[in-house]
Amino acid sequence: MTTRRQRPVRFALIGAGRIGTHHATALARHVPDAELVVVADPFGDAAERLAGPLGADSTADIDAALGDERVEAVAITSTSTVHADLVQRAAAAGKAVWCEKPMAMSLAEADAAVAACEQAGVPLQVGFNRRFSPDFAAAHEVVAAGGIGTPQLLRSLTRDPGLANPGTVPPWTIFTQTLIHDFDMLLWFNTGSRPVEVHAYADALVAPDFKEAGLLDTAVVTIRFDNGAIATAEASFSAAYGYDVRGEFFGSAGMVTAGTPAHLSTTHWTTAGMAQPTSRQDTELMRDSYRAELEAFCRVVRAGEPSPVTGADARAALEVALSAVASVEHGAPVRLGAPEVTHA
Amino acid sequence: MTTRRQRPVRFALIGAGRIGTHHATALARHVPDAELVVVADPFGDAAERLAGPLGADSTADIDAALGDERVEAVAITSTSTVHADLVQRAAAAGKAVWCEKPMAMSLAEADAAVAACEQAGVPLQVGFNRRFSPDFAAAHEVVAAGGIGTPQLLRSLTRDPGLANPGTVPPWTIFTQTLIHDFDMLLWFNTGSRPVEVHAYADALVAPDFKEAGLLDTAVVTIRFDNGAIATAEASFSAAYGYDVRGEFFGSAGMVTAGTPAHLSTTHWTTAGMAQPTSRQDTELMRDSYRAELEAFCRVVRAGEPSPVTGADARAALEVALSAVASVEHGAPVRLGAPEVTHA
Amino acid sequence: MTTRRQRPVRFALIGAGRIGTHHATALARHVPDAELVVVADPFGDAAERLAGPLGADSTADIDAALGDERVEAVAITSTSTVHADLVQRAAAAGKAVWCEKPMAMSLAEADAAVAACEQAGVPLQVGFNRRFSPDFAAAHEVVAAGGIGTPQLLRSLTRDPGLANPGTVPPWTIFTQTLIHDFDMLLWFNTGSRPVEVHAYADALVAPDFKEAGLLDTAVVTIRFDNGAIATAEASFSAAYGYDVRGEFFGSAGMVTAGTPAHLSTTHWTTAGMAQPTSRQDTELMRDSYRAELEAFCRVVRAGEPSPVTGADARAALEVALSAVASVEHGAPVRLGAPEVTHA
Amino acid sequence: MTTRRQRPVRFALIGAGRIGTHHATALARHVPDAELVVVADPFGDAAERLAGPLGADSTADIDAALGDERVEAVAITSTSTVHADLVQRAAAAGKAVWCEKPMAMSLAEADAAVAACEQAGVPLQVGFNRRFSPDFAAAHEVVAAGGIGTPQLLRSLTRDPGLANPGTVPPWTIFTQTLIHDFDMLLWFNTGSRPVEVHAYADALVAPDFKEAGLLDTAVVTIRFDNGAIATAEASFSAAYGYDVRGEFFGSAGMVTAGTPAHLSTTHWTTAGMAQPTSRQDTELMRDSYRAELEAFCRVVRAGEPSPVTGADARAALEVALSAVASVEHGAPVRLGAPEVTHA
Repeated sequence: MTTRRQRPVRFALIGAGRIGTHHATALARHVPDAELVVVADPFGDAAERLAGPLGADSTADIDAALGDERVEAVAITSTSTVHADLVQRAAAAGKAVWCEKPMAMSLAEADAAVAACEQAGVPLQVGFNRRFSPDFAAAHEVVAAGGIGTPQLLRSLTRDPGLANPGTVPPWTIFTQTLIHDFDMLLWFNTGSRPVEVHAYADALVAPDFKEAGLLDTAVVTIRFDNGAIATAEASFSAAYGYDVRGEFFGSAGMVTAGTPAHLSTTHWTTAGMAQPTSRQDTELMRDSYRAELEAFCRVVRAGEPSPVTGADARAALEVALSAVASVEHGAPVRLGAPEVTHA
Repeated sequence: MTTRRQRPVRFALIGAGRIGTHHATALARHVPDAELVVVADPFGDAAERLAGPLGADSTADIDAALGDERVEAVAITSTSTVHADLVQRAAAAGKAVWCEKPMAMSLAEADAAVAACEQAGVPLQVGFNRRFSPDFAAAHEVVAAGGIGTPQLLRSLTRDPGLANPGTVPPWTIFTQTLIHDFDMLLWFNTGSRPVEVHAYADALVAPDFKEAGLLDTAVVTIRFDNGAIATAEASFSAAYGYDVRGEFFGSAGMVTAGTPAHLSTTHWTTAGMAQPTSRQDTELMRDSYRAELEAFCRVVRAGEPSPVTGADARAALEVALSAVASVEHGAPVRLGAPEVTHA
Repeated sequence: MTTRRQRPVRFALIGAGRIGTHHATALARHVPDAELVVVADPFGDAAERLAGPLGADSTADIDAALGDERVEAVAITSTSTVHADLVQRAAAAGKAVWCEKPMAMSLAEADAAVAACEQAGVPLQVGFNRRFSPDFAAAHEVVAAGGIGTPQLLRSLTRDPGLANPGTVPPWTIFTQTLIHDFDMLLWFNTGSRPVEVHAYADALVAPDFKEAGLLDTAVVTIRFDNGAIATAEASFSAAYGYDVRGEFFGSAGMVTAGTPAHLSTTHWTTAGMAQPTSRQDTELMRDSYRAELEAFCRVVRAGEPSPVTGADARAALEVALSAVASVEHGAPVRLGAPEVTHA
Repeated sequence: MTTRRQRPVRFALIGAGRIGTHHATALARHVPDAELVVVADPFGDAAERLAGPLGADSTADIDAALGDERVEAVAITSTSTVHADLVQRAAAAGKAVWCEKPMAMSLAEADAAVAACEQAGVPLQVGFNRRFSPDFAAAHEVVAAGGIGTPQLLRSLTRDPGLANPGTVPPWTIFTQTLIHDFDMLLWFNTGSRPVEVHAYADALVAPDFKEAGLLDTAVVTIRFDNGAIATAEASFSAAYGYDVRGEFFGSAGMVTAGTPAHLSTTHWTTAGMAQPTSRQDTELMRDSYRAELEAFCRVVRAGEPSPVTGADARAALEVALSAVASVEHGAPVRLGAPEVTHA
């Protein structure tokens, strides 16, 4: 009457915003092998409002949370610009690190973050949750098993259901925050090859009034790989019909596709024809993926499994994103591997 | 830094078999508002093997579990023939009752179980999990909102991916264990109407050698309702392609369908054409439904919400099941409302 | 510079109603190996209105058309009650016979029609066009190749988009005119087996005011075959969303399905979700099938191919239809092979 | 008993190759309002082999065919390099002109062809058959009715099922012969806007041995329009799973998609999952479109309807194709409207 289950991984979560709220809730309630110990946010009130109902402590002192002896792992869900710094501080504190994307805003930052984790000997996993979507994971298994032969034409897209406050969106967000998921998909499905050139078109079609302020809300990026494959990544900040995340991976032996905005089999037939519901919530559509990435990270921490999304993966996707930014700035294709362009 | 979350509902679970294992795991790990306190099974070893890794106590003494003062709610996942008795004992112990289907094997048993809960003033919820499938729930919302007009032709089917041990399956299982889900669906989607006549064909096509022993593995039941609607329920114990649960609800203004064996959007295109994976696991396909019905029950217990699947619902589906049995026995349609036929 | 193509088959068409208009147009314009010589109809005006724009002659004298020396083949598209008589007269005139379904209204009539064609040595093909639908034909190839193993559960349905003039519909039409397509499908997909028992429910749910006059507009028929397979045929005279013809054929090794009311791949995604158009026209949805059955018949006449839909096929489907009628009349299942019930 | 149908349009067809064979057969047998009078080809044998079985005359003298007094309309299905010249000669002969794509190989040629038809006062229609696909036509109606709002992200792709004889494919074929369909789609679905810049990646991934000879078999083209819309056109000469033609048109109010390689509703479910057949034949998948474009042209000739695909449409698509060629040559985006680049 006694064998107790394995002790859960005890987490500090840094950053009590929208995505932090989602991950904190997952850690406290939906990831059985995780325990949320403390939520830290410079806005202590926000931390408390999030932590309280979840039965966790809260603090405005991030170093206190990182130094908390109960804490084994840190989930970084703060604003992107401080991700790389927090990765380094968490590593210095000897904690396992899970970091939302993008892990860094420059390649130099990315290198520093990766180096810090290596030196501290702590695992690092980055939040490319789409790899954990059952649909995309099954597609990747097909590709890994040779089911499409040699990749030739790849496509990945992200369309968000709406653009709530265009004034608050930093420049280049569409590349560094949104399309970075698609860049990771394209790299992951073309594992073994390297991108060699990137071309991008982008514009402010959803909120043209904010174009002056640097907001781009619509973009198409084409990527050439060293195995000849040509990839397209496409994003929009406003899909009327809801959250839309899809991939199409075509090669010499066939094609595999994943994703659909129609997330239920429910189908309604009337005089107007056939209709299926879509979803406007990424947290609904990607709920299983969000949980699965954290479950995987618990296995990394507890069972010593290798990180399924490494700092090197984060750096590679970032390099494509920064090249796309450069392509838009210069109105021309950009070769990768050239000295880094610095941005934002 | 202190508001704790709402206290979880503390459960005893009775019956440590296959479905009990699934529900115990859900209660302990995946239903945030539930806590598994104790697992009881006449086979104490089975109870212990299940409870231990989940951090719960175990016992072979069911009355001890029912009488445990920590326990607020009982989940009954034992063999079907003792369901009704356990419902009454749990009610007598003052516990909220959640019971797997079928809640009873005869209408008299069903009436006794319902009466016991009413007298004890405890809530009772029955395990028709399909109502909690997001696909079927969305379809039901369409129908409830008038989206198909007046129901005219209804269909519900269940096909299990395989028949592991035909020798262990009790007679009439296809009606009382499998199709009872479909009968509940048809009643639920035709709410407000009553079945008036039932006709059934059934045979042993999967395992003909066991026909002598009374095992029927393939069945089609047609049901006539008092609003004119005609319904079909269909089941097979062996679908080569995996678990298949579907509904089709047609009326004067349209049709709504729910369910598909293709549970991922992942699609593979090769020289052989297009292919999509299916699932062989009901616990995979229905995982969300299994969790959602227990989450709903926690709200019944904590928030006093009305039971979403009542004892009366269980009795109504059972009456159709027993009528289908009678139709097979007599080779003729059976009118409902006649004095009960006794079986099993 | 001269090799001419094969001479087309020269047709007389008898019956200038709705379906006759469709077939006459097909023969004159869309079936390259056919030539429409003459249209005959007791209403000479109707014959002329149809024939003129198609470049054919017309007549009110059916025997004149049957005796026309130019004519090699007769297409019978008249009212159903005279089908069997016209088959016999066309056979007596030595013409190849293509007859719309149902070929006869009683088994005795069916036998006489078949015998007449055999004695005259003329080919006979019946208008079960669904066999020529590319979707159903491909499904049948799968079944014939063993792709579902032994058939166990079969389903076929027909839903018409509307019931224009309920007052003009003869009693039992839903069985002898509509479901007869489904009975043929079920027999064709279960080739080699014989139906042994039929049970039917039917009602007037679309036009209840006409129930007194004998009009049934909604029906579900279950059929038991001698190989154990259980089949369901289902029909409605009023599908809000359009013409709906589907089949589902399930067996020991898998399932094949055919048909969908969504006849285009075009998909529209908006705030309301995803939508696809449906079709309200059987002549649109089944256009290719209508043409293909006539093209096949031209090959029967010219190339001596065996008839793909024989008089025996027509008789077998009719026997199921008449048994369904008897089941409704008697409120009980009906065994096949008993002395014929006479109707209509 | 005499009203004859409208007299069919009498055609000469120039070019007895693969696509000429298809169109000649359609004109002779499947387009009721057309009559094939004569087939002309410099290889007189080929002309005769095609014309004979179709009941048409044949000749090796193209001017004789163009000058044939019986002929009202000319269908040009010869090798692409002589299209523009033949358009001018047919116009000079006073015949209505239907020309396969591409109508010309340079903008100067295109201008000359258009001018010749205008001067002669003869109608001109170009073979962008995809506009006549029921799926794409329905999608275009949605867009024309405002169903996607303002176009923002457009996609069109063509994948052929195989590359039979790479040695015989002229350079730049993927742009001028294949993607030109996609360029026309993108222009048609973004009617009212003009392309302003084109970027292209292309490679020889299917038949790398022929890259030296100039054969490119895989390409991705991105196009920027003056209304901000960004479009992608994608092609491959070898799709393992069959012919694949699709479009996706996304705008401020929604998205419409058209096309799927799964051309039948037939679905097969086995232990391997779900499967649907695809088609390897463009003439099968696009059969209805091929016929419909010729039927439309007959209405242009007989009823004086405006040409649904004008010479200006052909020129606009060609301009994008030539810009894509230039982009590949220069490794940079190309602005449209600059002085013409000359090629091929």
